[in-house]
Amino acid sequence: MTRFRVAIHIVPRRGILDPQGKAVADALHTLGFASVGDVRVGRHLVLDTDAESAEAARDAVRRMCEQLLANPVTEDFHIATVEPA
Amino acid sequence: MTRFRVAIHIVPRRGILDPQGKAVADALHTLGFASVGDVRVGRHLVLDTDAESAEAARDAVRRMCEQLLANPVTEDFHIATVEPA
Repeated sequence: MTRFRVAIHIVPRRGILDPQGKAVADALHTLGFASVGDVRVGRHLVLDTDAESAEAARDAVRRMCEQLLANPVTEDFHIATVEPA
Repeated sequence: MTRFRVAIHIVPRRGILDPQGKAVADALHTLGFASVGDVRVGRHLVLDTDAESAEAARDAVRRMCEQLLANPVTEDFHIATVEPA
């Protein structure tokens, strides 16, 4: 078994209202960053897990996203990196 | 001016307690993912901004992180990608 460090991005699906992103965009405009357009705020998770291979770690993390980490109705997830920890 | 799409990771600094990460790790263990160790939960932002160049976009986003997006006491930020939108 090897320990892998996996980075995951979970973002609101395009077309779904993202009130947090809207609030951040408004705050940036107030601070003078007038050139900022759309802002989306999601989650960035980094987790360590033991697995036989990088592919097995990726499969396990995909199941974690489907079962717990991402909301299947409103969010998309993307496994960004799988690296030996 | 070109429109750039910038991805930012904001994560709790190592060594600082991350209660949300701890809660996620506990929930994953309960679901049977026993091989999961440390979990850190941060934010993944994607924002569109107009700038003269990718370097100028990166500089502007760095200032946004310092002034609003990241908590300088507890969080580290990393500008992951800067790409024409």
